[in-house]
Parts: sequence; structure tokens; C-alpha cells
Amino acid sequence: MNATDKEMYWEVLKSEYLFTEPWFTVRRDTVKLPNGHRIPSYYVTEYPDWVNVIAITEAKQFVFVKQYRHGIGSVHFELCAGVCEKKDASPLISAQRELMEETGYGNGVWIEYMNLSPNPSTIKNVTHCFLAKDVEKIREQHLEDTEDLSVHLFSREEVLKLLRNNEIKQSLMAAPLWKFMAENEV
Amino acid sequence: MNATDKEMYWEVLKSEYLFTEPWFTVRRDTVKLPNGHRIPSYYVTEYPDWVNVIAITEAKQFVFVKQYRHGIGSVHFELCAGVCEKKDASPLISAQRELMEETGYGNGVWIEYMNLSPNPSTIKNVTHCFLAKDVEKIREQHLEDTEDLSVHLFSREEVLKLLRNNEIKQSLMAAPLWKFMAENEV
Repeated sequence: MNATDKEMYWEVLKSEYLFTEPWFTVRRDTVKLPNGHRIPSYYVTEYPDWVNVIAITEAKQFVFVKQYRHGIGSVHFELCAGVCEKKDASPLISAQRELMEETGYGNGVWIEYMNLSPNPSTIKNVTHCFLAKDVEKIREQHLEDTEDLSVHLFSREEVLKLLRNNEIKQSLMAAPLWKFMAENEV
Repeated sequence: MNATDKEMYWEVLKSEYLFTEPWFTVRRDTVKLPNGHRIPSYYVTEYPDWVNVIAITEAKQFVFVKQYRHGIGSVHFELCAGVCEKKDASPLISAQRELMEETGYGNGVWIEYMNLSPNPSTIKNVTHCFLAKDVEKIREQHLEDTEDLSVHLFSREEVLKLLRNNEIKQSLMAAPLWKFMAENEV
């Protein structure tokens, strides 16, 4: 960020929380733009940070899950993903916990691969996307009552086909997967 | 979708709108999962569909904008993007209108490149991502009072550098840009 960038920032004249429920926190700001224009009600939704992971086994199989998503109202193949809980020491720990709970896979070599925003204009949190190589099956799934998902292993070619067919609808997952395809020719 | 997928759908027992403002529509559903578990308050935010566009000039320059984003509270390089307005006949028309208004670029050859969800679990809308080749500068920007953005032209190498440095934070833009890099070796 430079000085010119700072001049683009909005001034918050007033800010109030409309909801502060665990899964739904909404703020209404009254803001003033650098050009003097005011927006009386600008809504921002806040969530804890999210995580997801491209997990690949030693046999080069990609670990996917399939689940129903109520916002969009349909069933999709997805990367394993979840929320950074307060008990987690870091986003890495959150991602490793989610992978173990949802799929039973663990170990391997992990790096933080991307850091993304679902929508910088109206959502406050970010998603930490990890890449985990050489993960292995350690135990069975351990799902919460609100989780209903199945585990699927795909080859690189099968993942590429899902991407090309636009079957990976979730942008926070499509971005790191397409990055992987761009950077790993194989 | 197959029969097994359909069995994963949630049943909506009750649904009510908490907000129906133009820029903020929120629904609270009471749902029942296939395993019988109930979630008394499941929040879904609704927006009109969104659009964005990878616009490339005949000289292979990528048209970017730079603007402040209040949700995340910082300034970023982004693709030109916007909302499908009711007056627009199609998402393509919305994207062409936004590109012209925000940057003054138009014409060229357009395809719908991806169709993405910002977050399928809690957000209802989708984003139509376009790829427009051989666009040309036609007129000056024509911004709304709430818009304050500058136009920047980048080479493919400069875009790749932005991507590798994780400076494209918006997942709905990082996904089509990484797809472009994966599919266009140059």
C-alpha cells in the first residue's frame, strides 16, 4: 500500500452490529467516500477465517468431498474445508483438523498456498488455502451432526475434467486448484 | 445430479426474510437434514448475480482496476466487475456495460469463461466470469458517485506476478485468472 492507496480509503462515520450470532455477524456502517459522497447503510458480514486444502496422497490421488450446500441449493464436489475455531492455534491446525475429521486423512507435507477473500467488498474474513502432499488415510471420518459428506479420490486428470466442466463452483476452491494446474504441468 | 445427490438435500421447514434491502437481503431458514438433525437458524444472504471480465486488448494488455474494498478494508488490483441489473438483458450485457462504465473499454470477442459461487453454503447468487479478447478503448470512464477507481494495463507476465504474489485476493477473480494461465501457455 502506498500513500495514494490510503487516499482511497473510506471514512466510517458510524458503525453498529445488527447480528452477532455465532454463524451470522452483520455490521451496518455509515461511510464517507474520498469524493465526499456518503453511503448511509453499507452492510458487511463477518465470519471467522475459513480454511481449505488440496490434499494429495502419495499415489497422487486428490482427496475430495461431496456435499449438499444450502446457500446455492445443490450438491457439489469440493475440497475439504472448514472454519478456524477459537481452540485452533493457527489456520494450519484448523485445516489439518478439518481434513482429519471430514476424511480421516492426515500427515503429509503442508504449505499455505493462497490467501483469498470470498468477496472483499462485503465480507470481512479471508480463506487460508493449503496444499498438503503425501497425506495418508489414518482413520475413519468423524462427522458432526450437521455434516453429511462422502469422500472421493480423484486423479489429476479427473480433477482437471471437473474444473473444465465447471463442476467446482466454489471460487475459494477453484482458484487454488487452477493455480495448481497452472504451476504443476506433470 | 443423481438420485443419491437428491437424498443429500435439506428440507426447509420454515423460511423468513430478515432484510430485503437493495444491497442486503437475508433469509433465515429452519432446516432438517437427511440424518434427522435440525438447524433452527440457518442464514442465507441473497444478491443479484455478479459479473466480472478478463478483458485483453489487441496488444495483449490486461485491463485491471484498482479500488478500495470496504469489507476487507484495503485497496486491491481487480478485474472489472459489477452487478446484473434488472435493466440488463443478460449477464453478458451486464459485463459489457460494467467494462464500458468503469474503464471505457468495449468491443472485442466475448465468451462466458466460468460460473462461480462466492460461497455455496451461505450465499445464493453466482458470478458469471467472462473472457473478452481484442477490446479497445472507446471513451473515458463514467463512474457512479460511489465508485472511485483507476484503470491499469498489465502484460501477461505482470498479471502472473500479481497472482504469484497473492495480490489478487478476490477468489472470484483469482479463479478465472489462474484458469487463463493454466490454459494459455503463450
